[in-house]
Amino acid sequence: MRDVNSARNCSRRDLDSLIKDGLKMKRDGIPRIGGTVTMTFFEKSTRTHGSFEAAAQQLGMHVTGFPDPESSSVGKGETIADTVRMYERYRADVLVIRHPLAGAAQAAADSLDIPVINAGDSDNGHPTQTELDLMTIQEKFGTIDGKKIAMVGDLLYGRTVHSLFQALEVYDSDVWLVSPDVVKMPQWRIDDYKRATGREVVITEDLMDAIRNVDVLYMTRVQRERFPDTAEGNSDFIKADRAMQTTAKKLREAKPELIVMHPLPRVNEITRDVDETEHALYFTEVENGLFLRAALINRILNGEEFEGRNLDLGEEPELRQDLEITNGAKSGRHLIYRLNNGTLIDHIEEGKGMIVYHLLGLTELKKSGVSVVPPMTINSKRYGKKDVIAIHGHQLSPQQSCLLKLASDRATVNYINGGIVKDKFNVVLPNVLEGVLQCPRDKDVTNPKYSQHLTSRFYVESRNPLRVRDHFCGTPYGVEEVRKALTAPLLEKIKANLEKGFL
Amino acid sequence: MRDVNSARNCSRRDLDSLIKDGLKMKRDGIPRIGGTVTMTFFEKSTRTHGSFEAAAQQLGMHVTGFPDPESSSVGKGETIADTVRMYERYRADVLVIRHPLAGAAQAAADSLDIPVINAGDSDNGHPTQTELDLMTIQEKFGTIDGKKIAMVGDLLYGRTVHSLFQALEVYDSDVWLVSPDVVKMPQWRIDDYKRATGREVVITEDLMDAIRNVDVLYMTRVQRERFPDTAEGNSDFIKADRAMQTTAKKLREAKPELIVMHPLPRVNEITRDVDETEHALYFTEVENGLFLRAALINRILNGEEFEGRNLDLGEEPELRQDLEITNGAKSGRHLIYRLNNGTLIDHIEEGKGMIVYHLLGLTELKKSGVSVVPPMTINSKRYGKKDVIAIHGHQLSPQQSCLLKLASDRATVNYINGGIVKDKFNVVLPNVLEGVLQCPRDKDVTNPKYSQHLTSRFYVESRNPLRVRDHFCGTPYGVEEVRKALTAPLLEKIKANLEKGFL
Amino acid sequence: MRDVNSARNCSRRDLDSLIKDGLKMKRDGIPRIGGTVTMTFFEKSTRTHGSFEAAAQQLGMHVTGFPDPESSSVGKGETIADTVRMYERYRADVLVIRHPLAGAAQAAADSLDIPVINAGDSDNGHPTQTELDLMTIQEKFGTIDGKKIAMVGDLLYGRTVHSLFQALEVYDSDVWLVSPDVVKMPQWRIDDYKRATGREVVITEDLMDAIRNVDVLYMTRVQRERFPDTAEGNSDFIKADRAMQTTAKKLREAKPELIVMHPLPRVNEITRDVDETEHALYFTEVENGLFLRAALINRILNGEEFEGRNLDLGEEPELRQDLEITNGAKSGRHLIYRLNNGTLIDHIEEGKGMIVYHLLGLTELKKSGVSVVPPMTINSKRYGKKDVIAIHGHQLSPQQSCLLKLASDRATVNYINGGIVKDKFNVVLPNVLEGVLQCPRDKDVTNPKYSQHLTSRFYVESRNPLRVRDHFCGTPYGVEEVRKALTAPLLEKIKANLEKGFL
Repeated sequence: MRDVNSARNCSRRDLDSLIKDGLKMKRDGIPRIGGTVTMTFFEKSTRTHGSFEAAAQQLGMHVTGFPDPESSSVGKGETIADTVRMYERYRADVLVIRHPLAGAAQAAADSLDIPVINAGDSDNGHPTQTELDLMTIQEKFGTIDGKKIAMVGDLLYGRTVHSLFQALEVYDSDVWLVSPDVVKMPQWRIDDYKRATGREVVITEDLMDAIRNVDVLYMTRVQRERFPDTAEGNSDFIKADRAMQTTAKKLREAKPELIVMHPLPRVNEITRDVDETEHALYFTEVENGLFLRAALINRILNGEEFEGRNLDLGEEPELRQDLEITNGAKSGRHLIYRLNNGTLIDHIEEGKGMIVYHLLGLTELKKSGVSVVPPMTINSKRYGKKDVIAIHGHQLSPQQSCLLKLASDRATVNYINGGIVKDKFNVVLPNVLEGVLQCPRDKDVTNPKYSQHLTSRFYVESRNPLRVRDHFCGTPYGVEEVRKALTAPLLEKIKANLEKGFL
Repeated sequence: MRDVNSARNCSRRDLDSLIKDGLKMKRDGIPRIGGTVTMTFFEKSTRTHGSFEAAAQQLGMHVTGFPDPESSSVGKGETIADTVRMYERYRADVLVIRHPLAGAAQAAADSLDIPVINAGDSDNGHPTQTELDLMTIQEKFGTIDGKKIAMVGDLLYGRTVHSLFQALEVYDSDVWLVSPDVVKMPQWRIDDYKRATGREVVITEDLMDAIRNVDVLYMTRVQRERFPDTAEGNSDFIKADRAMQTTAKKLREAKPELIVMHPLPRVNEITRDVDETEHALYFTEVENGLFLRAALINRILNGEEFEGRNLDLGEEPELRQDLEITNGAKSGRHLIYRLNNGTLIDHIEEGKGMIVYHLLGLTELKKSGVSVVPPMTINSKRYGKKDVIAIHGHQLSPQQSCLLKLASDRATVNYINGGIVKDKFNVVLPNVLEGVLQCPRDKDVTNPKYSQHLTSRFYVESRNPLRVRDHFCGTPYGVEEVRKALTAPLLEKIKANLEKGFL
Repeated sequence: MRDVNSARNCSRRDLDSLIKDGLKMKRDGIPRIGGTVTMTFFEKSTRTHGSFEAAAQQLGMHVTGFPDPESSSVGKGETIADTVRMYERYRADVLVIRHPLAGAAQAAADSLDIPVINAGDSDNGHPTQTELDLMTIQEKFGTIDGKKIAMVGDLLYGRTVHSLFQALEVYDSDVWLVSPDVVKMPQWRIDDYKRATGREVVITEDLMDAIRNVDVLYMTRVQRERFPDTAEGNSDFIKADRAMQTTAKKLREAKPELIVMHPLPRVNEITRDVDETEHALYFTEVENGLFLRAALINRILNGEEFEGRNLDLGEEPELRQDLEITNGAKSGRHLIYRLNNGTLIDHIEEGKGMIVYHLLGLTELKKSGVSVVPPMTINSKRYGKKDVIAIHGHQLSPQQSCLLKLASDRATVNYINGGIVKDKFNVVLPNVLEGVLQCPRDKDVTNPKYSQHLTSRFYVESRNPLRVRDHFCGTPYGVEEVRKALTAPLLEKIKANLEKGFL
């Protein structure tokens, strides 16, 4: 793996070695290696752009690309893939991408043979910031393990804290999450962390408590716009703003060796009197950013790969769990669907039949001339009631099978031939779902409204309970979210069809 | 000639040698030559800018200038000439210019001693794009002669197809023009091509016909805004959009060796499934752009000149065709103008006298105290009726002579001295008209509303029928267009004067 | 001194040596020295940016930073100090700054260890432009001394003429100021010049008079927006525009060796026919800008310092002028303030007591529990009436002392202990006032509304009459302006307090 698209992509060994390289460059200087770095900044960032640019220049490299979206071709409706492929053809050696959509860096990496560095994709992540943050902690304390690290401020939208939190999964540190409730860390990120480390995190709104206890205070800014636009919202913001502010006075209660970090720019979340204290390390972070990024580019151009923390999905399973055929004859049982040859979807939860029917595209199939019997609710020995659907002369496609399983865990599939059930099984999901599920995020690179023409891809991390993870943005979703994501567009469609009188 | 301002500027030998250089650089690499390229992009273009930038960097050159108009001084009212002269003084070796006005590159070239490359001037041309397009065809087929080349999409506004069409004048290829009627190729461009080659072109709206027959499918995008903003316009657009779309399915009917080209960026005029086929060469074009432009800059900096396809205007003619003086005495003939010494403009078409009168600025002359007899319609032996104008004590300036000839082909000039006609002639136009005629285009660099302070210049390509060609934008105009261009501002002026009660 | 923040910073020796270096580079070429120039352009300027960029590139240096404010972090509320410190950490060797606020370059220089070049700060100054202007005059005439130099056009807002005027303080030249009244040179700039040189200046609206007499015509543009937006204002503008226009025709009355200069871009204040004359030197200025700036950067990177024209404030004085204690007992004198221990501020001008009271923050002090007797007007032997203020148990802080002196020249301070005056004195201002006074300019980097978190600093150039000079923007203020600056926010505050019912 050569791409740096997510802090979750780095193993402990990757981070150790990268930080070591960064510190070495800081000590010994940056070597001149030549080549070309292309920086495609679909979103402005003086700071990150300047840092990569300085690193590239000091590496003796050419810098191409664009520093802000105003000068890109995006406005003309070009996809990220087409834009970045252009620079690959211009003989770039490495592409750095910043984008307002989550997963954009992954989309770029999938389109290119040259390595891609994620310089921030929406609120999703900012892995090189995290790497320089870790370098700074390591430089200060000689270790990251064993340290108490508090992330403060906007933990809901802040990509720097999201990436840092993910990276800390490979360290033995203690994480404090300090934020107003309105911008607290998403639960799934906490769950990811706990699952990976087996550790708890401290969640608090009390900055003073953190200041008195931790080794690292990682500050971010709480934006006014996160609060409701009301008098109360305003007053809540002012309170939060003050509560989440680090001042020299507050720091008098800290350990002498506590360090204050900040990805910058800051407004007033760290008062200027802190700059003069020994605690302030945010300008050192800026400096370390130069060396870390130079080390990273150097490493990539040397062809050194990251081992990564790949998802371990295990072997691809059999895509079906066979069930015993108790009564082979089906045709006579319910005359209403008279199924001599075809598929009987059985044991669907009562009332969910119509969802399955639409989800599997059976309305369209029916309109194309296939005889499909719409869902009926009938009695079930095992469940009391159940919905069933019959499709004459057809078996389920792999995609339909996946959709059925996602929608109805207990549904069984019966393939009937000559009136006899030949085959009866529960669907088992494959390890990778391609083109089945749409990520429910709005600012996501796979969202069709951004016309990126990407095929969605999800990894099935767990089957029971269901947990899938988006290939592009790395977000995990449980069964409830998956079902919501599946039915939302469907409900729109059913509603639209109803209005057109199709049903 | 060192400037690359128009595809019409390149001879066959120029193109052959440039393409050869480009292919050589692609094979052997780009040499490091040093120096400075200035890129003045008065209009944004990520793609073209990136390509020139990459070429310059890989040539080991400095890159200066500005990538978009937002950062230029244009907003402060500075002329192109002043802006580009600045960079010449900063010691640029070559200037690349992109501008929203036709003829801007020529204007820049006229102001500078250093060579100028046109990177696109309005819908007028984009010669380096054409050169890389030709390089791509040549690379694929080993030749451009004998190939069937279809240009598809927006042939009215697309500068890339305009330049390509012009360049194809020096090849023995067959041109297909495939477009919806609303954006078809301007007739004068077709006429230019036919005149230069003696060949016909295929004009069609049927993309499938082209796909089945041609070797090269050169795609461009038809914009929604080209169609009327009505329900019908919308429906026409949707139809055209689909008709002009190239898909993998449609290409199944093409020759195996057909290549699909596109200047990029594309939206959906080429569907993404085409990318995977052997036909797709648009990303190769991107790559070839790098090498072609590097070859071009290298060639220019080596001092190699293009031979060009200069207009052959022949020798400068005598500016008058003498006529026989049949009756020398003029003063007694028509007492009304009693012309003892001065100019009698005779044989003006009936009713056109007033136009000539104003066009030659005779109102102003009269107001300055010169005795000018306004046009009178009198009997003519040869024409039945004719208009005549008498100017006491004055002869026509060269500019007035040109204007007279452009306005009235049959007018004769009589210079009278002592009541006797001493001289009688028809005006013959010189090869070059300077400051006589205003190009009627709106988005033209010589349009006074853009305050570029340029003197217009037209070449007289043909006197009978009249055809003049604008030095800046290269557009040819016939007699009707010339007269319309002459009288439009005049009519405005006459109207304004009438309103002020001047007549 | 390594920073180039103001034309007032350069001594004659500095300018002579810098111009010599510039002319040498023009003759011998620009050496390649390496390193990094960071250009932070918080305001767009193609021309100045291009010039520095070309200079840096030809010096073999890397160029980083941002060319316009759109791509800076300013929008996110970051201070200039934080932004420029970032680039210092990226290992820049020299920082060039352009900013819309006066004093911004000084603020940057104060925050950095690396040298800073001012590339224009509001209407305040543009020292490198001045240096290249002087180089151009010197190159043409071999000297600047003895020349008659006319600055023409907008002398109120034009930073180039402001810097040039300041620099001419070290030459023996004659200055003509030619402008419409509405944009005439600020009086304080004229006073500064006169004080420094002992010379008079010619002030006129008659451009022709200047053209007939001077050696150098330094043109700038008068903007339409400087005139009132009325019919009369429009007509005044048109008149001024014509009056301040230099044409080839007007120049026929000039000395043959007269040179026309312009910082560019020009619109029509110099007509294009002047370009062809021997007088036109504005494009030579562009060229000289390249070499001057290269020489400047080279000099800075070589560690050569400017000697500067530092303010000579003399030795720091005793901060008090002791007065004779005529009657030591105070407590019994006016029972109303019963001051046994504390400070009696005496001899305040009648009616000014309340201003002093608020200015010294005594309302706040009183609210914090200190017994403060608000100003009373009582009889005075010396002045008839006077205001007095008593503060129990407190002495004045240094800042309060300065404020008292600035507000009331004649006030005396009495420190009372045990009912006896132990100490009686007039305050003497220190050489430097820190955090005492706010610069009254609107577009000033210290204006709190721009949130730069800077402590104001003023130099006391003269005590009688009072003249202080702003460290950041270099503007001098007299006693009236200082008092206005002090009371303006105070009056706001008093008004606000009154409205809240605090008084």
